[in-house]
Amino acid sequence: MLGDVVAAKDIFHGAVRTALEKDGWLVTHDPLYLKSDDVEFYIDLGAERILGAEKDGQKIAVEIKSFLGASEVTDFHLALGQMLNYRFALTQEDPTRVLYLAISQDTYEAFFARQFTQKVIAEYRVNLLIFNPLIEEIVLWKE
Amino acid sequence: MLGDVVAAKDIFHGAVRTALEKDGWLVTHDPLYLKSDDVEFYIDLGAERILGAEKDGQKIAVEIKSFLGASEVTDFHLALGQMLNYRFALTQEDPTRVLYLAISQDTYEAFFARQFTQKVIAEYRVNLLIFNPLIEEIVLWKE
Repeated sequence: MLGDVVAAKDIFHGAVRTALEKDGWLVTHDPLYLKSDDVEFYIDLGAERILGAEKDGQKIAVEIKSFLGASEVTDFHLALGQMLNYRFALTQEDPTRVLYLAISQDTYEAFFARQFTQKVIAEYRVNLLIFNPLIEEIVLWKE
Repeated sequence: MLGDVVAAKDIFHGAVRTALEKDGWLVTHDPLYLKSDDVEFYIDLGAERILGAEKDGQKIAVEIKSFLGASEVTDFHLALGQMLNYRFALTQEDPTRVLYLAISQDTYEAFFARQFTQKVIAEYRVNLLIFNPLIEEIVLWKE
């Protein structure tokens, strides 16, 4: 685990951006600002930045989560809540854009391999984008 | 706003506990430990403690959120994610216990009065318990 969570967030963000570009996506928004009714998500200081990208007429939004906080469970609460709030905002403001939660392969094979995490991800239909931060490539899209 | 968020969390926690007792509830768990499959929520260091209470055969769990962080939006992401994870754990482990999100009257009348917040609360059927932290009384149960 990297000592500096802020630096790690930036590294993961850059890795996902590069991985998307290698996969033929055009990154159109970095960050993607979301606003819904009377809540503006760009004032969401604690959150990691969202990417907006397009490929062959498909539009996606990617929420990148490093899972490098003091507690994976707390990181998962935050990731899930943010995901559902963003998705709700997108259904109102940009309904054809599909939201993905980007997590590293390490996180996918550890915390996201747990029974509870898998059930919650299925229950709330969270789309995952699994990436390898070292080689900066997409490993799996999981819907 | 109080300068010391940790102290404020403890004050809010005590206020909700007292408010429940004044309303005739027996606080049976403080904190209420939740475990589901292979995730234990008591290792959830970043989160505020949950209360368990009973009255006339009804069982509730109360997640208390102070909304005193740097960003109300981030606090809301965390509150929503935690709520949905706890609720999912309860459906498996203690299905008759009903989960409430406890927020202060100030938070209810400001951030929770926004259109977006109201829509998300309705969408995910989040039960609210609104309390007054000064007089330590329940103001409203909203389901």
